[in-house]
Amino acid sequence: MDFTIRAATPEDCKDISRMIIELADYEKMSDQVKISHEVLKQDGFCQNPFYHCLIAEVPEEHKTKDGHVKVGYGLFFYTYSTWKGRCVYLEDLYVMPEFRGKGIGKALMSSVARVGKEQQCARLQLSVLDWNTPSMDFYIAKGAQNLTKSEGWHFLRFDGEALDKLAEEAPKK
Amino acid sequence: MDFTIRAATPEDCKDISRMIIELADYEKMSDQVKISHEVLKQDGFCQNPFYHCLIAEVPEEHKTKDGHVKVGYGLFFYTYSTWKGRCVYLEDLYVMPEFRGKGIGKALMSSVARVGKEQQCARLQLSVLDWNTPSMDFYIAKGAQNLTKSEGWHFLRFDGEALDKLAEEAPKK
Repeated sequence: MDFTIRAATPEDCKDISRMIIELADYEKMSDQVKISHEVLKQDGFCQNPFYHCLIAEVPEEHKTKDGHVKVGYGLFFYTYSTWKGRCVYLEDLYVMPEFRGKGIGKALMSSVARVGKEQQCARLQLSVLDWNTPSMDFYIAKGAQNLTKSEGWHFLRFDGEALDKLAEEAPKK
Repeated sequence: MDFTIRAATPEDCKDISRMIIELADYEKMSDQVKISHEVLKQDGFCQNPFYHCLIAEVPEEHKTKDGHVKVGYGLFFYTYSTWKGRCVYLEDLYVMPEFRGKGIGKALMSSVARVGKEQQCARLQLSVLDWNTPSMDFYIAKGAQNLTKSEGWHFLRFDGEALDKLAEEAPKK
């Protein structure tokens, strides 16, 4: 199937928002999604965008029964290694179920890698749930290293009250 | 001991670079550091900075035998959750050995949390090596959740030839 990969525009935010919820629904976690398309628009298309996004689009003749032609997205941002410099982090990679198995996910991921290389990034990084064997196998087959397994990196998060408390303890300016 | 925490300026890049190497030396990995202070200056102080940094500074009377007054740093950047929006990621937290145990590391971390809250970040995230028990215990005691343990998140990386190959496979624009 014919498809194109292109940089998202502010006009894509409603579709990105729809697909974020579809992805969360699949994980039975859509109640966790607190992001509206207005916030996506504000955060991704300001002067210092907090994220970047690529959209996979199919021609009109392949649109879904609901009329969608935007059928996948790859959302990423830049991170920084104090050893290697610029890196790119792939936060979400999603293709609508009926468009899977056509190379769209692979094309989105490769395109994020290319954007990263164009920005002189030394690494493309991402996180995968250990029970998500199909995704894990796919990334490993493509040459990814599992740094949690090989080096023991664990991922920590402060949020809610723990984050509030931490911030309150900062010395006065 | 008296100390101040402030945002880094381009003039701090030589000291940040020195401390990045000190931190890597401690981990016996300083041969891995490929970042010069010139690159740090370029990447952290351009229009869309790839990272941000806070500096811990002590008064002249407490300077080290080598004359250093910049004795710690916290290097961070913004990331994005498609469920929660803006997040802040603490990449490096370092205090020179002779200045440890005075609350400087804690003040740096809290100050990064405060900057994150000021930018409406919902989370402060970081990665810790599982064998680094003192750091792990410190963060957990402060309220961090270990998402690798509780949810099974594993950290994957493409670099070198694997990244080149991935980028080359991107569809032509």
